[in-house]
Amino acid sequence: MQQPYDLPLEQLRVYQPPLTKRPDFDDFWSETLQELAAVPLRHERTPFDYPVKGVRVYRMTFDGFNHAPIEAWLAFPEQDKPLPGIVQYHGYNWAADNQLHETVNLALKGYAVLQMLCRGQQSGSVDNVISSNGHVTGWMTKGILNPKEYYYRAVYMDAVRALEVLRDLPEVDGSRIGVIGGSQGGALTLAAAALSDIPKLALADYPYLSHFERAIDIAPAGPYGELNDYFRRHCSFPEVETKARETLTYFDIMNLAPRIRCHTWIGIGLIDTITPPSTVFAVYNHLACSKEIGIYRYFGHEPIPAAIMPKLKLMMDYLQ
Amino acid sequence: MQQPYDLPLEQLRVYQPPLTKRPDFDDFWSETLQELAAVPLRHERTPFDYPVKGVRVYRMTFDGFNHAPIEAWLAFPEQDKPLPGIVQYHGYNWAADNQLHETVNLALKGYAVLQMLCRGQQSGSVDNVISSNGHVTGWMTKGILNPKEYYYRAVYMDAVRALEVLRDLPEVDGSRIGVIGGSQGGALTLAAAALSDIPKLALADYPYLSHFERAIDIAPAGPYGELNDYFRRHCSFPEVETKARETLTYFDIMNLAPRIRCHTWIGIGLIDTITPPSTVFAVYNHLACSKEIGIYRYFGHEPIPAAIMPKLKLMMDYLQ
Amino acid sequence: MQQPYDLPLEQLRVYQPPLTKRPDFDDFWSETLQELAAVPLRHERTPFDYPVKGVRVYRMTFDGFNHAPIEAWLAFPEQDKPLPGIVQYHGYNWAADNQLHETVNLALKGYAVLQMLCRGQQSGSVDNVISSNGHVTGWMTKGILNPKEYYYRAVYMDAVRALEVLRDLPEVDGSRIGVIGGSQGGALTLAAAALSDIPKLALADYPYLSHFERAIDIAPAGPYGELNDYFRRHCSFPEVETKARETLTYFDIMNLAPRIRCHTWIGIGLIDTITPPSTVFAVYNHLACSKEIGIYRYFGHEPIPAAIMPKLKLMMDYLQ
Amino acid sequence: MQQPYDLPLEQLRVYQPPLTKRPDFDDFWSETLQELAAVPLRHERTPFDYPVKGVRVYRMTFDGFNHAPIEAWLAFPEQDKPLPGIVQYHGYNWAADNQLHETVNLALKGYAVLQMLCRGQQSGSVDNVISSNGHVTGWMTKGILNPKEYYYRAVYMDAVRALEVLRDLPEVDGSRIGVIGGSQGGALTLAAAALSDIPKLALADYPYLSHFERAIDIAPAGPYGELNDYFRRHCSFPEVETKARETLTYFDIMNLAPRIRCHTWIGIGLIDTITPPSTVFAVYNHLACSKEIGIYRYFGHEPIPAAIMPKLKLMMDYLQ
Amino acid sequence: MQQPYDLPLEQLRVYQPPLTKRPDFDDFWSETLQELAAVPLRHERTPFDYPVKGVRVYRMTFDGFNHAPIEAWLAFPEQDKPLPGIVQYHGYNWAADNQLHETVNLALKGYAVLQMLCRGQQSGSVDNVISSNGHVTGWMTKGILNPKEYYYRAVYMDAVRALEVLRDLPEVDGSRIGVIGGSQGGALTLAAAALSDIPKLALADYPYLSHFERAIDIAPAGPYGELNDYFRRHCSFPEVETKARETLTYFDIMNLAPRIRCHTWIGIGLIDTITPPSTVFAVYNHLACSKEIGIYRYFGHEPIPAAIMPKLKLMMDYLQ
Amino acid sequence: MQQPYDLPLEQLRVYQPPLTKRPDFDDFWSETLQELAAVPLRHERTPFDYPVKGVRVYRMTFDGFNHAPIEAWLAFPEQDKPLPGIVQYHGYNWAADNQLHETVNLALKGYAVLQMLCRGQQSGSVDNVISSNGHVTGWMTKGILNPKEYYYRAVYMDAVRALEVLRDLPEVDGSRIGVIGGSQGGALTLAAAALSDIPKLALADYPYLSHFERAIDIAPAGPYGELNDYFRRHCSFPEVETKARETLTYFDIMNLAPRIRCHTWIGIGLIDTITPPSTVFAVYNHLACSKEIGIYRYFGHEPIPAAIMPKLKLMMDYLQ
Repeated sequence: MQQPYDLPLEQLRVYQPPLTKRPDFDDFWSETLQELAAVPLRHERTPFDYPVKGVRVYRMTFDGFNHAPIEAWLAFPEQDKPLPGIVQYHGYNWAADNQLHETVNLALKGYAVLQMLCRGQQSGSVDNVISSNGHVTGWMTKGILNPKEYYYRAVYMDAVRALEVLRDLPEVDGSRIGVIGGSQGGALTLAAAALSDIPKLALADYPYLSHFERAIDIAPAGPYGELNDYFRRHCSFPEVETKARETLTYFDIMNLAPRIRCHTWIGIGLIDTITPPSTVFAVYNHLACSKEIGIYRYFGHEPIPAAIMPKLKLMMDYLQ
Repeated sequence: MQQPYDLPLEQLRVYQPPLTKRPDFDDFWSETLQELAAVPLRHERTPFDYPVKGVRVYRMTFDGFNHAPIEAWLAFPEQDKPLPGIVQYHGYNWAADNQLHETVNLALKGYAVLQMLCRGQQSGSVDNVISSNGHVTGWMTKGILNPKEYYYRAVYMDAVRALEVLRDLPEVDGSRIGVIGGSQGGALTLAAAALSDIPKLALADYPYLSHFERAIDIAPAGPYGELNDYFRRHCSFPEVETKARETLTYFDIMNLAPRIRCHTWIGIGLIDTITPPSTVFAVYNHLACSKEIGIYRYFGHEPIPAAIMPKLKLMMDYLQ
Repeated sequence: MQQPYDLPLEQLRVYQPPLTKRPDFDDFWSETLQELAAVPLRHERTPFDYPVKGVRVYRMTFDGFNHAPIEAWLAFPEQDKPLPGIVQYHGYNWAADNQLHETVNLALKGYAVLQMLCRGQQSGSVDNVISSNGHVTGWMTKGILNPKEYYYRAVYMDAVRALEVLRDLPEVDGSRIGVIGGSQGGALTLAAAALSDIPKLALADYPYLSHFERAIDIAPAGPYGELNDYFRRHCSFPEVETKARETLTYFDIMNLAPRIRCHTWIGIGLIDTITPPSTVFAVYNHLACSKEIGIYRYFGHEPIPAAIMPKLKLMMDYLQ
Repeated sequence: MQQPYDLPLEQLRVYQPPLTKRPDFDDFWSETLQELAAVPLRHERTPFDYPVKGVRVYRMTFDGFNHAPIEAWLAFPEQDKPLPGIVQYHGYNWAADNQLHETVNLALKGYAVLQMLCRGQQSGSVDNVISSNGHVTGWMTKGILNPKEYYYRAVYMDAVRALEVLRDLPEVDGSRIGVIGGSQGGALTLAAAALSDIPKLALADYPYLSHFERAIDIAPAGPYGELNDYFRRHCSFPEVETKARETLTYFDIMNLAPRIRCHTWIGIGLIDTITPPSTVFAVYNHLACSKEIGIYRYFGHEPIPAAIMPKLKLMMDYLQ
Repeated sequence: MQQPYDLPLEQLRVYQPPLTKRPDFDDFWSETLQELAAVPLRHERTPFDYPVKGVRVYRMTFDGFNHAPIEAWLAFPEQDKPLPGIVQYHGYNWAADNQLHETVNLALKGYAVLQMLCRGQQSGSVDNVISSNGHVTGWMTKGILNPKEYYYRAVYMDAVRALEVLRDLPEVDGSRIGVIGGSQGGALTLAAAALSDIPKLALADYPYLSHFERAIDIAPAGPYGELNDYFRRHCSFPEVETKARETLTYFDIMNLAPRIRCHTWIGIGLIDTITPPSTVFAVYNHLACSKEIGIYRYFGHEPIPAAIMPKLKLMMDYLQ
Repeated sequence: MQQPYDLPLEQLRVYQPPLTKRPDFDDFWSETLQELAAVPLRHERTPFDYPVKGVRVYRMTFDGFNHAPIEAWLAFPEQDKPLPGIVQYHGYNWAADNQLHETVNLALKGYAVLQMLCRGQQSGSVDNVISSNGHVTGWMTKGILNPKEYYYRAVYMDAVRALEVLRDLPEVDGSRIGVIGGSQGGALTLAAAALSDIPKLALADYPYLSHFERAIDIAPAGPYGELNDYFRRHCSFPEVETKARETLTYFDIMNLAPRIRCHTWIGIGLIDTITPPSTVFAVYNHLACSKEIGIYRYFGHEPIPAAIMPKLKLMMDYLQ
């Protein structure tokens, strides 16, 4: 395969396909946010005994969208004054024991870190939205025939609520909160930054759920393929694909991108076969905020060491 | 790989590991069946225009477990007198447009065929049981920490209800009903035969959900691996695996096998890497009913032409 | 891989490369048909006990090209008046026990169905043409250095003879006969429609043996690769490739396409890596008859459920 | 995979399964040899201009079994006195331009080398035995339902005739002729040594066509799998497999092994997945002649450098 | 593949093959340590600007075996009193930018951490031992024909020297130093603990370079295969393998295990295909010190979240 | 994959990207050659007993660059008058016992053949240049941060010295010497022809180390990928890649090509995924000498039978 596959870098830099949002796009999100607002802010935590000195760790539960109990890890260094905060979102079908350690490792760098565990994907976070339709394995097509039932509607709102929860903690300085995550977590990072005014900084590695139309055509691997699979299954009834594609427009990070106002950094590897570079640049080139992009020629959909220090530097600049 | 992998055939023939059911196993199912019985029998159908003469085809909906709307295809030849009936169950994550054609093809052989579309897995069948815990992609671990929430509890009951629905149709002779299916459909076939006295014949190709303990250790491919994956994710908290394994005992087809009373045929390929032969023989060797097994040396988890005529012959013998 | 790989759909729709046939192309086929005509029409059948009521099934043998005994399955519903007929052709190296069941399933839809088993590829059909040259595994290069010895010359003629045999049966209305098949069977469907005036309808899924020149360059998988392999083996003697490519022009379905006069339907999946879409559109765009094409965005070289009802509908419209 | 897979070496050394030959085994071969003897010895050659001094190269044709024209390469160093001779046989579906170079390279070492090109597998060698039955791709199952029609019957006889041809050349000392080959060529080497008294030395690398019964069960890769594939296709009609397995007994090198009387060397790699070591040891342990075995721990079915010098040394010892 | 492949767990627990060390094993290491001791302790560091508050990070260079300049990362929290120290070793061919971040993450937990970059494998660490012989790609066979030239002789000594360097730092309490690493790093962890009395704790994930004899036979993947490859290349000259195997006995962690005196924890996943469980248990069962083993049923050669807290707990218990 | 992938043939034929050499390119090589010249010509040989008559075989050692002992095989036919000579170079990480046989096979065609075993890659050839930096597995990045330390600087000089050694042998006519090799051996063939005036003929199959810039972007497989891997590892420190790419310009065969003055033949397969055709044409199109190219449509990076006779013919024309 051509090593920097997808479009050449010079084309990626200016790739800005038309937005696909429907006229009621903003109304949809206003109503959805109101629905979230109707759920009272509620959270509780129980200490977790982590074998490291100088850090406090908690299992946390909060009420998410539709009153679903959502689990999270919370960690912060023992310190007297209010800390800057970070909400962290994990990748698709990725949550596991290691979310705990990831949360602690970031907290030790001087932040109160709350890592939300995505509903349905992780123990304790309850996916309580019933879909009127079936789907293929995974969550990408759950509720896809109705924007109000689509899986990510609730998850985007949980992501916003997680920010409200972190801001509500006594140990946290609510004016210095950032969001971070990669892949699905990158999508949630950008969605939360678009749908909440709490974040002052958004750091998204190779965001997922972006520019679906092209992803369906070009992603060689990974969960975008669930869409292709779903469409296959309903090939005799093409109205299913039409409806599903319409639903996706409400959740496409590309369509949400222009709403983001905080400083935003996006990272992308040029050999990423799961979130193709063009789908990520499509988002980046629609950002209207202050922004930066980290481009990694030799990396795919994987941890990128060269992206670590730029992100830590931005946290220091914007949150400390 | 050794071509007939797993145990040698002579060992398979006598492989009968101890049942793993807990003391309240039968109580669990009695209560579950009572819960199903509390849902009134309700079904409706709308004609579907299929371009073949002499057959009637319908889209059907019935109330399943927990009052969930369950979709099905119904087809039967135009005929004056009551027909023998067959409930058909599809494979895991397998349902698609072709279920329609499969249903018609079997109906044309002289049966009223109802193919249930598994909840959540297929458009129109609503998975309305909320799980208190998350899971990995797929349905194998949905609700796995509580037998009352486990995904297959509802599906097994839907499978029983599908039989009651078919028996209720005026075109059907309720005393001549069979069940058929492969893989997940084979598991549902046997579960329905164990939990309902309607079926007079059960035909199960390489049944899934059988002898989980060994499947976890030996299945080289396929969705049993979701269990391994789930256990991986919770490796720091071994009580999760313990609880999950306990839940599985209630749904293990091996534990349900002794309850089956109708004539039962099971088919298995000796190079099946998804439902290993030993897990299938474990079920077969625990059957207490009249039974037959079809053993196919050169086949894996796939359509087995040599199994077609034996199944059609049994339908003629037991249902016509 | 780009999901709709090969040319973009808008280019496929108008892709019409020049024909490659040699001046004596039509003479070649006239002489070949005369050679077939010299073989007297002879066929016999023995009943086969299939465990389904209302259908008659036979093992059939007829004299094919060069007097070779050719086997076939024959099935039709028990009925008083003459039935419409269908000759069915199977895929490359694909014939097996399941041809029997496929034949019955189609017959039950109201047709007298004869499925020819390709010579050499299936038990009982004798490949009696000796090739002066060796070949690589498979049949694609058997006799490839001489059009008169090429494997498919005899097979195309057997396909024509199968039509004559079906027309000759008392149970069949010879004026309502169609041809159907996929892949190699799709090629034979179109070849038979081009070389015989019996068919009133041709239904070809992803036809093989089409537009060889491009197939050699572009097919990522499947038996077109036998040609590449054959050419590799003779790389020191380039005259072999030249001669072989010339032979192929006589059998290229693209070159036969303009001769077809009955209504023709072709189906193709846009991610088919065995019969690349462009090779199929090359055929379609050279058809001069009444025609339709079914395009399936998410399918490769595999059964396509969405193609079933369109084909059944055409059978009803043209044959019943 | 366990690196020396199959049986442990100490078990391989004594592995001697019972012969499977039928009572008429020797009669079958006597009659077959008589049938060959009825074909008059006929051969011709045309010089081939090979760009190396001191060697003469020819394209050769001789009459093989059933009077088929069989092609061969012939090469020998320019020399005054009669040369020792070697007949070389190539691997399965392997012949190509490089057979020419292989022949020259061996000739340059001081031998008159004739490399037979297997009928059907290579340009110019005509496979003129018609099989009453079809087969799967490849030659392993061609004619498998009748020992008289089985593909290798003719090939074994061609291999014997090639020896007679070489002996008949004026440049050759007919009393110093050996046979050599690997894989299929190893099988032909041993078959020729068993069925002809011309060879004074047999050198067989990982011989194929040996101990079929075990090969079907254990070979993870390669053309033994054609047998498994063939049996799959006829799974509804088990008499086909029975008949085919009976045919194979006549051609199993293991059954021919006890007939060999010349010095025989066999080479085998312990990670050979195409001709499993146990199938080769089964042959070796049934040899009643003077014999040696080369065992290569780290090699599979591939050229084994360590086997070259032992073979060259044996040629010097036995042929020069 | 059998999911817990290799030996069953109950056999692993008692698997203790005989040691393979030669009579001069201890002399060899005494002399080697003397050779190291002759290199004066020399190290220097330059601050590295890492964007996190409260931690000091340095690029470090020290003189390793044979006076080679060896690079390392050094990090520790800003603190007044001497810190416990940890020397960390990375995996085979694994070092990269991320070693920096790994070092910082561990330092933030309250330790002065020095991560040595293995010579030749990483920028700045010079591999200055010339081998009289060539090798295959990788380092496993570099110098393998002479224990004095073998690659790991120098690396084991660098690992010891790294401990001496860390102990020498003013910020470190030399009486509370541990060693940690996985795979190659696990081997170095154990080698350092066997060859130096500085470590008070050794934490080794799935150690490499252990029980070579079995690894050659059983490892399905990974760099043990370099040995197999090397032996292949010299198959004509078996004395090469003999000599190489002898060299390996000096470096086999199994042979060094009995020398370890500090508390030792070893972790192993039961589906590890790169360092097979039996090779790790062989080491563990030869440990004569206070010891623990972490067994992870569902993990291969990869980060194991469940192993993190046990290791952190041991660091607290033994080093703080 | 498009079968002739990379650029279309007509574009390949004219593909001539700008040279990348730095101003001191020729000075660099002058100084390097002077450094070689300072090593006195020294070589010795010991007879090797090869079991073929009429050929003499020796193990040879000579002093290479930096006085490293370099091993070689030497073979030639027993003959009275001086022989034409050929220096042969092997592929990357490819040398093994078979180099011996390859050498003999070519010698038997009438040449004194010396096959150099590349330092470090093969037993006995000592890689005695210490690199100040580490590298990834393999030799491609060894010393890559400094042209004077780069691995191939010494190897190119060894290749020149091998020519001087062969010319120095009494059995050889020093005015008739050629160079030959494939892949890495093809690169060395061209490098030697560019840096020495001894060769009268250069025969290079799919030369490696050519047009690095494009190879990094396009090679789907093989050791060019070591560069991509090395750059990945240092992604946080982009100056590393910059420096490495500069070093490569000194060794790029494309930059050396214009210096070649003897007749040169290059062979390339159009489906070569290891040395992409465009990188080879880039070299070819920069050759200023008398030249020919062999283009093989159906071949990748593998032995190409059709290339053998053209090469033998050129040897006869230019060396005999």
